[in-house]
Amino acid sequence: MSSVMGNKIKLSVFGESHGKAIGCVIDGLPAGVKLDMEKIEKEMERRAPGRDKTATKRREDDTPHIISGVLDGVTTGAPLAMQIENTNAKSEDYGALSAIPRPGHSDYPAFIKFGGHNDIRGGGHFSGRLTAPIVFAGAIAKQILEEKGVKIGAHIAEIGGVSDKRFDKNDISENLLERLSESSFSLIDTKREADMRSAVESARIRGDSVGGVIECAAIGMPVGAGGNIFDTVESRLSAALFAVPAVKGVEFGEGFGFAKMAGSEANDCYEIKDGSVRLLTNHNGGILGGMTDGAPIVFAAAIKPTPSISMPQKSVDLKAMTNETLEIKGRHDPCIVPRAVPVIEAVTALVLLDMIL
Amino acid sequence: MSSVMGNKIKLSVFGESHGKAIGCVIDGLPAGVKLDMEKIEKEMERRAPGRDKTATKRREDDTPHIISGVLDGVTTGAPLAMQIENTNAKSEDYGALSAIPRPGHSDYPAFIKFGGHNDIRGGGHFSGRLTAPIVFAGAIAKQILEEKGVKIGAHIAEIGGVSDKRFDKNDISENLLERLSESSFSLIDTKREADMRSAVESARIRGDSVGGVIECAAIGMPVGAGGNIFDTVESRLSAALFAVPAVKGVEFGEGFGFAKMAGSEANDCYEIKDGSVRLLTNHNGGILGGMTDGAPIVFAAAIKPTPSISMPQKSVDLKAMTNETLEIKGRHDPCIVPRAVPVIEAVTALVLLDMIL
Amino acid sequence: MSSVMGNKIKLSVFGESHGKAIGCVIDGLPAGVKLDMEKIEKEMERRAPGRDKTATKRREDDTPHIISGVLDGVTTGAPLAMQIENTNAKSEDYGALSAIPRPGHSDYPAFIKFGGHNDIRGGGHFSGRLTAPIVFAGAIAKQILEEKGVKIGAHIAEIGGVSDKRFDKNDISENLLERLSESSFSLIDTKREADMRSAVESARIRGDSVGGVIECAAIGMPVGAGGNIFDTVESRLSAALFAVPAVKGVEFGEGFGFAKMAGSEANDCYEIKDGSVRLLTNHNGGILGGMTDGAPIVFAAAIKPTPSISMPQKSVDLKAMTNETLEIKGRHDPCIVPRAVPVIEAVTALVLLDMIL
Amino acid sequence: MSSVMGNKIKLSVFGESHGKAIGCVIDGLPAGVKLDMEKIEKEMERRAPGRDKTATKRREDDTPHIISGVLDGVTTGAPLAMQIENTNAKSEDYGALSAIPRPGHSDYPAFIKFGGHNDIRGGGHFSGRLTAPIVFAGAIAKQILEEKGVKIGAHIAEIGGVSDKRFDKNDISENLLERLSESSFSLIDTKREADMRSAVESARIRGDSVGGVIECAAIGMPVGAGGNIFDTVESRLSAALFAVPAVKGVEFGEGFGFAKMAGSEANDCYEIKDGSVRLLTNHNGGILGGMTDGAPIVFAAAIKPTPSISMPQKSVDLKAMTNETLEIKGRHDPCIVPRAVPVIEAVTALVLLDMIL
Repeated sequence: MSSVMGNKIKLSVFGESHGKAIGCVIDGLPAGVKLDMEKIEKEMERRAPGRDKTATKRREDDTPHIISGVLDGVTTGAPLAMQIENTNAKSEDYGALSAIPRPGHSDYPAFIKFGGHNDIRGGGHFSGRLTAPIVFAGAIAKQILEEKGVKIGAHIAEIGGVSDKRFDKNDISENLLERLSESSFSLIDTKREADMRSAVESARIRGDSVGGVIECAAIGMPVGAGGNIFDTVESRLSAALFAVPAVKGVEFGEGFGFAKMAGSEANDCYEIKDGSVRLLTNHNGGILGGMTDGAPIVFAAAIKPTPSISMPQKSVDLKAMTNETLEIKGRHDPCIVPRAVPVIEAVTALVLLDMIL
Repeated sequence: MSSVMGNKIKLSVFGESHGKAIGCVIDGLPAGVKLDMEKIEKEMERRAPGRDKTATKRREDDTPHIISGVLDGVTTGAPLAMQIENTNAKSEDYGALSAIPRPGHSDYPAFIKFGGHNDIRGGGHFSGRLTAPIVFAGAIAKQILEEKGVKIGAHIAEIGGVSDKRFDKNDISENLLERLSESSFSLIDTKREADMRSAVESARIRGDSVGGVIECAAIGMPVGAGGNIFDTVESRLSAALFAVPAVKGVEFGEGFGFAKMAGSEANDCYEIKDGSVRLLTNHNGGILGGMTDGAPIVFAAAIKPTPSISMPQKSVDLKAMTNETLEIKGRHDPCIVPRAVPVIEAVTALVLLDMIL
Repeated sequence: MSSVMGNKIKLSVFGESHGKAIGCVIDGLPAGVKLDMEKIEKEMERRAPGRDKTATKRREDDTPHIISGVLDGVTTGAPLAMQIENTNAKSEDYGALSAIPRPGHSDYPAFIKFGGHNDIRGGGHFSGRLTAPIVFAGAIAKQILEEKGVKIGAHIAEIGGVSDKRFDKNDISENLLERLSESSFSLIDTKREADMRSAVESARIRGDSVGGVIECAAIGMPVGAGGNIFDTVESRLSAALFAVPAVKGVEFGEGFGFAKMAGSEANDCYEIKDGSVRLLTNHNGGILGGMTDGAPIVFAAAIKPTPSISMPQKSVDLKAMTNETLEIKGRHDPCIVPRAVPVIEAVTALVLLDMIL
Repeated sequence: MSSVMGNKIKLSVFGESHGKAIGCVIDGLPAGVKLDMEKIEKEMERRAPGRDKTATKRREDDTPHIISGVLDGVTTGAPLAMQIENTNAKSEDYGALSAIPRPGHSDYPAFIKFGGHNDIRGGGHFSGRLTAPIVFAGAIAKQILEEKGVKIGAHIAEIGGVSDKRFDKNDISENLLERLSESSFSLIDTKREADMRSAVESARIRGDSVGGVIECAAIGMPVGAGGNIFDTVESRLSAALFAVPAVKGVEFGEGFGFAKMAGSEANDCYEIKDGSVRLLTNHNGGILGGMTDGAPIVFAAAIKPTPSISMPQKSVDLKAMTNETLEIKGRHDPCIVPRAVPVIEAVTALVLLDMIL
């Protein structure tokens, strides 16, 4: 069991939803990177709750305090430790839950795994709040990647049945990715926003929640990144993506759509153009044989509906071993998809940087 | 770049499609396991080509020769090395391909990555043939898992648009998994076989290929396996699944279906039954918060159509940098989905065993 | 480059000598351990400076603040983050050193490695102060080991040419190890203390420093811990020991003494005693073929003299590329051997626990 | 427990002394290296038994057969698998040993660890014979290092009390290392050979064995290789060195000699010479703060006497639990130090290459 990821850049995440603080240690960052703190905080704003109507009203003060590894704003090559204090937690809301697992959450298996010793307030270490340090680390990775010509951006491809346009897989501009990666409700076709918000609002009123899909792209990666058999780009990206809470599916390029395609439709053919090799299509999402092929990396992640809903649900008391009805009070997002977009971008950045350092 | 996977059980795979031999080293196996060689060879038969009309006519002699780590049929605790000699390779078929990458294959990025030094005959180290040692290792993992009460089975959920029934996620019997894991054309509803075979045969006649979906389940895992943030069951399984050639999507439980569900539909509620905690549904595919929850682990993998098709395709000569038309001769599967079923089971077994050892 | 160690228990250390704080994240601790904070702080006192005349007069307030992973004094199974604030640093002493590397320290290679971006105040991340979080983590490991019957203790075997008695390798009592591991000037024969202190004091007066040897033992480990070829007990312990600043040699059992022994003298023979296998001697220091053999684990580590001395030394200005004479001001230990004893015990505990979890 | 080492270059070693074959898989080798097979075989000759009077009379046919990863003599970037068949094993000699552990060997802890299932013939997987694939892999690493300007050589510093000259740590020529690394009885002062051989011969006649010390050096490493706290050059080298059977001590630079030195004697001062930074002395063996400092890397390893001696020794029957007297028949080296020299060079090469790739 591990809250550490990465090979060259090792990210170690710590903290609990209602503990003193959350944070991370990033080991292996190159020395000499002048951190763009404004951009880092903007990224963290995108993920923070209470910034948008689709999200919970809690306002966390997510200010990242850098403890080590940075001198005069420049990385030193030593581990970068960062900490966010928990100031706005209302743990009393969760008090009664102690032995009654919330359906769809980690509560039940965590209770068994840790013999009841885990911090269950707000999900403890399994809380979505732990994605804040991941977004922080990802923002640094993004900055280093951009200096190397790699640009990442993601958008809400679907929420509650309402879809955005999808990426044109073989023609993704830096401008589009820039725009997406700066928005707090990222859409290719911004006209879909109203319908998506209605779907979320309608769920909120019912005391329910909705899921969705996030699509992400990266351009500028060199050809041949990734590795042999067990170290494919898909393996590494998916491992990181499934570490994001609520992600339950990942597909690259046409993904599950390949099931209904013929080889003659699915293969990406080649041509020489302007003296370079070019792919005519990009059904494979920029990855062939587990390696980057120079086309944009494109993938989608399925996000399940927020498990915290205010409707009564059947559960059990794990200590008394009795059947119970659970009503979750507190404040919860009826849809976490918009806030998950920067998290998806962050883990993507961490994996791609780890791959080319 | 690495052909090594696993933490406690490290599997190192070697060999090229048309080289002297392929094989693997399995490091960390427990001592004292009496290997059921008959069952291991049956598993390898399921993956081997030429056993079924959907597959290529090549017959490889896939006999696994154990070199070390086993004494009198029992594991010793030392690394188990295994080798399969390549006897039936026809490398001349591929001779002309040297600098013309086959669309949909690893050829182009591998050429760039390895500076043209990689063995390209039949895909070299990236060939699907390298799944033979994985199936071998997986068969051993399966045997050890069964002794611990864990049973794995997968089936062809879809080929060329024809679907099998899906698992009833919260009610999967050992008998069903046993039957699936012994078949060479694994179906829950065996009546779908004829239609699937027609779809494949029709592609074969056109010189084309078809893709599909494989669904896999595992029962008997203890509650709480898997880990914190970056070591989720989904992370580890997906990393291994995307190492299987042609897998382009992985989803757990409802997967991408979650996008259209409400939280009230998606959450798996609890009840006490016969003194134990039970999930009323299993939309999450047996995994909550990245840990096993005691329900069957259920996931699906999308398989892209075999990239080797006999229709002419646009490609380029990477040395001459000219546009070319490529016609792949040789023998190729119009559909690899049936043969991929035991490979999916194998990597699943390796990951689950690594997790509970 | 990595400040992370361990497999099952991953220790990530962060901070710089004169930065805001130092600390660590311990990933993989078992849940349900009631931490003995008093004992942990006692361990940290043993390492802290200014407690003893052999050490620098600085008094650091080394209070460890636990940030996460502990609830009501009991580990939760989530990563345990700990932080020690730097309150007593006097960075001005080091100001002039910026480009003049102190002989014997990390300064020169670190300057090259990090392109001059590393924090050089007091050695930055390479400072001996970073052993404080290691001792903290080791104290927790020690406590868990003791609950499993494993006891560790080390002593000053030599300082400035004055020697302590060595362990009777095949007869080491828990009482002795208990006594050693509670002392701040650990000696088997406490009568040697005065002579050792004289040697240190004499060096201090000369503006010089002295080195020494630490001997460490562990009893209670099960037979057969450790692993095959590359995962020997010696490999894992030595890797951790050489991470302790100033350690330049490690030997197990007779170590370099084996060079002058015959096989007939060096071999540890066996007998059956009280129904158990027993070794008649323990020249191999409790490790055979890289595995524990049931006898006490015994090893020694050579500690070089503190490189910070107040005598003038030849150095260079790395920016101006000129020859310089360096006089180190500030406060420095004329001998770090006594303070290194708990650090040696700590890394030993972390490795042994990682090995048997 | 693991027979796998390395980060970028992963070496997986397999086989047993009296099994079908021994070998290795090297994962992560760069593509495009034209292997100098003659040099590789020469290295293996240096380690092979029966080439020298100090060694056993067995002649193993240690021809390495490359199975994969090489095409037309050039590495492909895929895992390189290599196998050496066991042709000359005489397993009957060991038949009677089955449950009577040989003192000084791995037999007893291995019996406990593997529940009696390990292959004990000739030490099985723990046999010194397993160093043959390590030397093979090391020879490839050496070749790649030499192309990068790094040269490694080791010599017998001591055998049975007879000493060779030691390296002049701050002045080691490529010629000297070349000469040492080509010899099968490597000495700086070749006039010591006769005395060393007498010491060995005298032990052989007594049915006894002798130990020794090997000193190794590497020149040409860039400044700043190695890493932060837990990834020091000393940590990584020592971990690999203690994987070599019979190594029981490792010291860098002055090593245990530092214990009797003052800081003013031990520190290596700097000067500017010909526009470059130079160390005036090299007491630290080319490593400061865990990083290379540009001076030659110099270290020594203590080798214990061969545990297999023909004198009767006290042992026990692990099944019958009775006291026994053991007389080891078979053919054994009265001194393995000369044959261990190329093994020490090999693991050094593997670690240094892994560090700078």
